[in-house]
Amino acid sequence: MSMEIEITSEYIDQLKESIAQKNSGYLKDQLHELYAADIAIVINQLDLNEASYLYDLLEEQVAADVLTELEEEKREELLSTFSTKEIAEQLDNMESDDAADVINELPEEIQEEVLSHIEDIDQASDIADLLSYEEGTAGSLMAKELVCVYINDTVGACIDEIRKQTDSVDVMYAVYVIDENKKLIGMLSLKKLIISHPLTRLDEIVEPDVHFVKTSATSEEVSELMQKYDLVVLPVVDQLGRLVGRITIDDVVDVIREEAEKDIQIMSGISDDVDSNDRLWRLSRARIPWLLVGMCGGIIGSRIIGNYENQIQIHPEMAFFIPLIGAMGGNVGVQSSAIIVQGLANNTLLGDTISNKLLKELGVGVINGLICSSLIWAYSFMIESWKLAATVSIALFAVILCASFLGTFVPLTMNRFKINPALATGPFVTTLNDIIGITIYFLVGRLLYHVL
Amino acid sequence: MSMEIEITSEYIDQLKESIAQKNSGYLKDQLHELYAADIAIVINQLDLNEASYLYDLLEEQVAADVLTELEEEKREELLSTFSTKEIAEQLDNMESDDAADVINELPEEIQEEVLSHIEDIDQASDIADLLSYEEGTAGSLMAKELVCVYINDTVGACIDEIRKQTDSVDVMYAVYVIDENKKLIGMLSLKKLIISHPLTRLDEIVEPDVHFVKTSATSEEVSELMQKYDLVVLPVVDQLGRLVGRITIDDVVDVIREEAEKDIQIMSGISDDVDSNDRLWRLSRARIPWLLVGMCGGIIGSRIIGNYENQIQIHPEMAFFIPLIGAMGGNVGVQSSAIIVQGLANNTLLGDTISNKLLKELGVGVINGLICSSLIWAYSFMIESWKLAATVSIALFAVILCASFLGTFVPLTMNRFKINPALATGPFVTTLNDIIGITIYFLVGRLLYHVL
Repeated sequence: MSMEIEITSEYIDQLKESIAQKNSGYLKDQLHELYAADIAIVINQLDLNEASYLYDLLEEQVAADVLTELEEEKREELLSTFSTKEIAEQLDNMESDDAADVINELPEEIQEEVLSHIEDIDQASDIADLLSYEEGTAGSLMAKELVCVYINDTVGACIDEIRKQTDSVDVMYAVYVIDENKKLIGMLSLKKLIISHPLTRLDEIVEPDVHFVKTSATSEEVSELMQKYDLVVLPVVDQLGRLVGRITIDDVVDVIREEAEKDIQIMSGISDDVDSNDRLWRLSRARIPWLLVGMCGGIIGSRIIGNYENQIQIHPEMAFFIPLIGAMGGNVGVQSSAIIVQGLANNTLLGDTISNKLLKELGVGVINGLICSSLIWAYSFMIESWKLAATVSIALFAVILCASFLGTFVPLTMNRFKINPALATGPFVTTLNDIIGITIYFLVGRLLYHVL
Repeated sequence: MSMEIEITSEYIDQLKESIAQKNSGYLKDQLHELYAADIAIVINQLDLNEASYLYDLLEEQVAADVLTELEEEKREELLSTFSTKEIAEQLDNMESDDAADVINELPEEIQEEVLSHIEDIDQASDIADLLSYEEGTAGSLMAKELVCVYINDTVGACIDEIRKQTDSVDVMYAVYVIDENKKLIGMLSLKKLIISHPLTRLDEIVEPDVHFVKTSATSEEVSELMQKYDLVVLPVVDQLGRLVGRITIDDVVDVIREEAEKDIQIMSGISDDVDSNDRLWRLSRARIPWLLVGMCGGIIGSRIIGNYENQIQIHPEMAFFIPLIGAMGGNVGVQSSAIIVQGLANNTLLGDTISNKLLKELGVGVINGLICSSLIWAYSFMIESWKLAATVSIALFAVILCASFLGTFVPLTMNRFKINPALATGPFVTTLNDIIGITIYFLVGRLLYHVL
């Protein structure tokens, strides 16, 4: 078993030094010890000159694997120094789905040129095929490499066929069975194949009950299906039911992680998929839209408070609790909508009606509202007037109820109109609750101070 | 290929009606058409009587699969109506890891009794073994079912051995090779096994370069390793390097999803793992701690503003922009910390020092701060006094910078002290930024109004 080298920043610094000294012997030894995924992590941290130098030292197959694993921006940077022919050589050593992903990132004007340089005609046509599917569909996720045999064969003939086909397949989880029209009939588990007699006919051991998707299925549908039924590989068929590819769980794991990250970013008010290695301007542009939304909310808030200028002049203590009311409305709204957003993502809301959800959230709101407002009553009654204490605690209770309602209602409604409900957990609901909270607070205040 | 029935609330209502009419013939037909995962979704939505009735109609193996897939609370409810012997019968039909998970949820006093009723002695000892590992470790995640052969065998003998062993294994992705001390030597891919001659010795085709973990590895380490190297199955060894189990990717997919959900909940100020089907009191208790944190923040805020009571009396317009300052500090802080939390989760922060991150975030803060504060200057100069306009825009700029700094610094520091940095993205940083924002705002205000 190979030693695992941990990729630390010290280790990367050490490699950088060796690159500066052009110590190719030492570097080759090191690269030999590393997995492709680890080499990619190293290269992600190098500047372009260092990265090119190190990349050139890699063996052909490893180089292709590393290229697949690199971060998108680093890969673009590196490939921009390659000729179209050199890019084509790399793609020749990749699985078709990875190759299609890489080509998709290239500038359109050179995509065709790269394709024309790929030596393996089958590979080139597989890639061209995959490029035709829309992004985010099963077609764009799948790879063309798979092992399939005809339903009329025997186990022995099938194993011979597998010997021939496995050249193009890295790992093989299942063997698909098709009929003479290439229509998917079922699956052979490798286990059954190994333990069956060579003369057994495939139609005796085929498992006809196999999950599959059409090329047009969305990646969310694919990931849901594979998670629900614990699938490792999923065959993809075209509109006529013909087997055209397969999706493996490792690609879906990436989809799941990206989905979760996208939701977290949206909830945090970041509108674009960015990470902390992105450039300053991109980071800043991804955040400004929601800041402006928040600012509009703040301005509306200022107009509302502006209406009560006289009251504040007479009772400046009214201003003390503005931040508390705003913050609590925001917090409760975020909590409620996070629960709903997760329920929607996990399909655990099924069978429950919207009104049930609302009732339950309002129940939680009543409990938490009573706890919080009696605490704030006790505090403010001790150190402020009873009028202020009553205003703050009544308003707080109303704000918590109102935020529970909105935090439930808004994401459910967004979901019904096919808008990502995670948007509701972010600055949108927070801003809305801020405004509503202030309105309630000053309304209650005016009522108590002027009427009583 | 089987038809897939979509589980809608109409479909569930239909089944409920048939249960009420005790129409077991129709229900059995329906259950026959459904996958275990789908039956579990249905049962999750039934009350206990309905669930018990439907569950009793299931075939033995399907019943065990459904039990595995049920939501934890529904499973507990259902099992509480079973005798320990009946529970043991279900566990006999499960994979060892699923069985151990189920037993773990039972009250401690009956765990031993259930174990003693399991007929298959090997299964019982496997389960007892798995129960001894701490939760959240590779040992608790793994299953004991695996196929392993000795390094000295030939391919032919190995296939015979596989025939014997596969009874206990549902799906088989790889065959592990061990030495006479049960130490893990390497792996055989099924592909190689199928295409090799029966007389080939295993040591000629064994792949010694295999990833593995120790039983004590954390589930995060397992999930990181499997994601990084795109593994479908990972062998687990004990302290002596002996093969004791294997972890499959579908279990890890659940870990990944649960991690992401936990982070979202923590970021939203929910302290316990709850979902919207949980009981009212549990939902409410999971949220109250962070609401109280937010309330303390609000009270501190009220004390700070209290110090400026006279100023507010003279210049009540100062109060107008309190919500804006608070909201913007919160929004910017959440954005910054979300980026850092994700970077930490994805290990993309490697090689970057904390000070680099801080500088970059401050850069983004300066850009967005300049944009926002010039806009607010323009707005407030038009409709308020120049002093208020200057106060608001200077304070807003300072608040945005400060929130960028804290949003970066706090999660990085938490991470260094092994505290989940997602905590920082939630009410904690929001509350802190609220307080700091108000302090800055009134300080700037006093300076401008009194000094100038």
